[in-house]
Amino acid sequence: MGEPTSNLDELPAFEKLTKLARNPFDLTEPGGLSPQRIADFICSGGGFDLLYATQRLDNAVIGGLQQLADQANAVEMFLAMKKGAVINRFEGHESENRQVLHTACRDVFSDTPYSPAASGQAQEQLANLQTFLADLESGLLINEQGEPFTDYVNIGIGGSDLGPRAVYLALQAFGLPDRRVHFISNVDPDDAAAVLEGLDLSRTLVGVVSKSGSTLETLTNEELARAAFVKAGLDPGRHFMAVTGQGSPMDNPDRYLRSFYMYDYIGGRYSTTSMVGAVMLGFGLGYEAFVEILRGANDMDRAAEERDIRNNPPLLLALLGIWNHNFLGHQTIAILPYSQALVRFPAHLQQCDMESNGKSVTRQGDRPAYLTGPIVWGEPGTNGQHAFYQLIHQGTTVVPAEFIGFRDSQYAEDILIQGTTSQEKLLANLLAQSLALAKGRQNDNPNRSFSGNRPSSLLLADRLTPYTMGGLLALYEAKIVFQGFIWNINSFDQEGVQLGKVLANRFLDHFIALREGHDIDRQDQLTDWTLLESAGIVKKST
Amino acid sequence: MGEPTSNLDELPAFEKLTKLARNPFDLTEPGGLSPQRIADFICSGGGFDLLYATQRLDNAVIGGLQQLADQANAVEMFLAMKKGAVINRFEGHESENRQVLHTACRDVFSDTPYSPAASGQAQEQLANLQTFLADLESGLLINEQGEPFTDYVNIGIGGSDLGPRAVYLALQAFGLPDRRVHFISNVDPDDAAAVLEGLDLSRTLVGVVSKSGSTLETLTNEELARAAFVKAGLDPGRHFMAVTGQGSPMDNPDRYLRSFYMYDYIGGRYSTTSMVGAVMLGFGLGYEAFVEILRGANDMDRAAEERDIRNNPPLLLALLGIWNHNFLGHQTIAILPYSQALVRFPAHLQQCDMESNGKSVTRQGDRPAYLTGPIVWGEPGTNGQHAFYQLIHQGTTVVPAEFIGFRDSQYAEDILIQGTTSQEKLLANLLAQSLALAKGRQNDNPNRSFSGNRPSSLLLADRLTPYTMGGLLALYEAKIVFQGFIWNINSFDQEGVQLGKVLANRFLDHFIALREGHDIDRQDQLTDWTLLESAGIVKKST
Repeated sequence: MGEPTSNLDELPAFEKLTKLARNPFDLTEPGGLSPQRIADFICSGGGFDLLYATQRLDNAVIGGLQQLADQANAVEMFLAMKKGAVINRFEGHESENRQVLHTACRDVFSDTPYSPAASGQAQEQLANLQTFLADLESGLLINEQGEPFTDYVNIGIGGSDLGPRAVYLALQAFGLPDRRVHFISNVDPDDAAAVLEGLDLSRTLVGVVSKSGSTLETLTNEELARAAFVKAGLDPGRHFMAVTGQGSPMDNPDRYLRSFYMYDYIGGRYSTTSMVGAVMLGFGLGYEAFVEILRGANDMDRAAEERDIRNNPPLLLALLGIWNHNFLGHQTIAILPYSQALVRFPAHLQQCDMESNGKSVTRQGDRPAYLTGPIVWGEPGTNGQHAFYQLIHQGTTVVPAEFIGFRDSQYAEDILIQGTTSQEKLLANLLAQSLALAKGRQNDNPNRSFSGNRPSSLLLADRLTPYTMGGLLALYEAKIVFQGFIWNINSFDQEGVQLGKVLANRFLDHFIALREGHDIDRQDQLTDWTLLESAGIVKKST
Repeated sequence: MGEPTSNLDELPAFEKLTKLARNPFDLTEPGGLSPQRIADFICSGGGFDLLYATQRLDNAVIGGLQQLADQANAVEMFLAMKKGAVINRFEGHESENRQVLHTACRDVFSDTPYSPAASGQAQEQLANLQTFLADLESGLLINEQGEPFTDYVNIGIGGSDLGPRAVYLALQAFGLPDRRVHFISNVDPDDAAAVLEGLDLSRTLVGVVSKSGSTLETLTNEELARAAFVKAGLDPGRHFMAVTGQGSPMDNPDRYLRSFYMYDYIGGRYSTTSMVGAVMLGFGLGYEAFVEILRGANDMDRAAEERDIRNNPPLLLALLGIWNHNFLGHQTIAILPYSQALVRFPAHLQQCDMESNGKSVTRQGDRPAYLTGPIVWGEPGTNGQHAFYQLIHQGTTVVPAEFIGFRDSQYAEDILIQGTTSQEKLLANLLAQSLALAKGRQNDNPNRSFSGNRPSSLLLADRLTPYTMGGLLALYEAKIVFQGFIWNINSFDQEGVQLGKVLANRFLDHFIALREGHDIDRQDQLTDWTLLESAGIVKKST
């Protein structure tokens, strides 16, 4: 199956890189960041250029990282994944034992897809989507008053919210006229109330998204929303749609206007290009735009098959991350898009990356002796420059940065102020930040000195479009998957969220007992009860 | 002046705490997290309860932290700040040399404010605001067609955007009917285009916020917005308002409908309760609601004067942060509000904290031998639970968490599902997470084991209102200021953003030269030019 049997620190290249990390490349040396270096350290693929001259590495390190990728069988594992290997599993321990086939959703442009069964299911669902969107266009699907639907509320949480929402916000410039999309995710009742308050429900569709059909937050919000429709004299059956797993409790076409399927071989955080994102994005942007997202993602999935890391952006990005994290010891990574439209992309990556690779157990069930997934955070520049960049430049903790930029703006509505356009100002800042972090600057006033040698990469494409958005999604998905392979962990389960659920249910039992006047065995769960009392959530017993 | 002359590691308590940190309290021991401990470890003040039993400390550590605060003169410094000491400065080096008086903005409820001059200026501006809002109400201030203004666009960046925006989003439930607020911050031209696109400009006011009156991003967006008004046949002079420093280039009443002032003794990231937040919040929420924000902040500023750290929530929160960061070695902190309305509060804190304390130089100009400001990140729960909590529970890096919650919801629109309300589900999750992180759980399947001993605090108030929002703002401001005092750094300047600005201007010069056909001395700035070419932003010279 091409799976690694080795931990990162057992790969021969690990020792070599450990030695090289004692003297990482000095970006502050005169001539260190030479024009030649900048021109040489570019990796292109899938519509993106990755500029990495401002990382603390040289050709020897790049050679070591190539060996690391080869020794970990990173590309072979990726190909095995695309072909349907059961890689969501542990050796010798109970686990989900599933295929990982989010790539199959967009492997729909060839007659010979890697995983024909999964791509066939994707094609079926796309046809289903196309019919739904055509029915909206033709007026076959209308509301009780014969009017077209103008608004769509996506109810989902985690992977059924973050990725789809990030992509919708990124592509609003390409939105269909008279179509708006809204999102409810949090079980906080104020979230649903604030969204529903401003809507004409009679012209609103609601897409409820849950693979298991049993996500408590989502079902709760669905009921809140259904109650609002009933209160407005509307029939929820004419407004609510389901995106769920076949056979789930939500797979009940009687309750929904239309139903779309997702499959257990696609994890929530990798599901934006499945029906999870498709129905909402199709409504807001149209079918063709969604297919362009798939095309961009598929092209990046192909670029990720390249064995030479200098020509494989996601694999190189994965290895740069491992260099900074495991060899140079930096615990976090900042994602800094110079595009306001990508405002929620870092939040999507927080899930995709940290839920995938925030693990402490190898595929064999051992505890790794090295760091796995980093802490991912970030906000769009230039906003971040006026917020947390102070720490990135002069703080006591080094934060590797991944800048994302586009040569042209989306709206092309721009203005010359002081001789330059806003887009030029945005790009000037983007480039300036990576140089400033790398080179630093000495000053007699210690408070005005910059140490430099703070690593970053620049990820660039021509324009943020459905195509490049698809590419960007797939680029980071592949980066995360590659890192998981090299760390020898399972990037596809999320057992770490279970304990919180179990304990939350205990508290819910308390609330139910209080409401229904049951006796509560306080002695048995004294800690819980004291916490409820101490937090002032229930009255103290005297 | 009560300023410390010592670095953190020179304070006598530092060694004691270093020793105690070798064996931090074990939360996973049977009986470790006892009901008694939960009930004892509560600190109340300013409308908030801070529950900290789930931190890795015992009474010996609390005693050591109290000594640390005393030895650093933390409360004395705080009082000196409120009274107008010039604490934004360095000894022996050029610096801003300013007072730090954001607390004076809300010290307007007493006849004897700490800093009468600054509180007097705050009162003047509040009167100015009250007149403006009354004129809107009475119909004295109307648009060209005699209609009332319904929309307000806030143009600002950094402190003129993040804090005000976070507070507005937090309090939308208290918004005036028929009033909406929008925000433009990023120099990305798509940001302004997306906001302006959906507005009826004839009924829109624009507030331009810049203390210096020369923030390039803000001036650029102002020009973009003015051009849109002119294009719509409207007179910007009847729609644009200024919030700026007296005497700044923007202090030009001829260009603005109304002008409001901010003063150099209030830093941008501490300015939400000044006119920077006031004008926009007053428009959106009304004058009384804004005064409630001030009242909540002022009450918290008073609570911060308490010398016993067990009764001073901001000081205790500061010390818990120092315990986790400097003694237990955790580099980041996650801010996790269990309230969707606080969706942008972590972004505000990223600025307020990281721009204040992301420093590598003590007040005497030396390099500290300890970590200063942590990396701050976070998203609302329960959303985060379905995103990055996997890493917080099972990752290789421990992330201290600060949970924020409210006993009641804002809208009080709730529903019983499976026997509990949404608000109960939210609270159940909040409490469950802190317990799960602390106690962990062993399992034969290593992938289902939770190590526990992951520290967190719970910050609780009754309901998210203007009053508690003001308290929460002030709580974190004071926390950050206390940490800066104890780290012996200047939390009030931001020299770290300067180098990026300088280098950005070099790139802008290239763009200007290209547009105007000047000769560019490429040899002189070969690195910049190569970066522009390599990034594909200008054509490669052949």
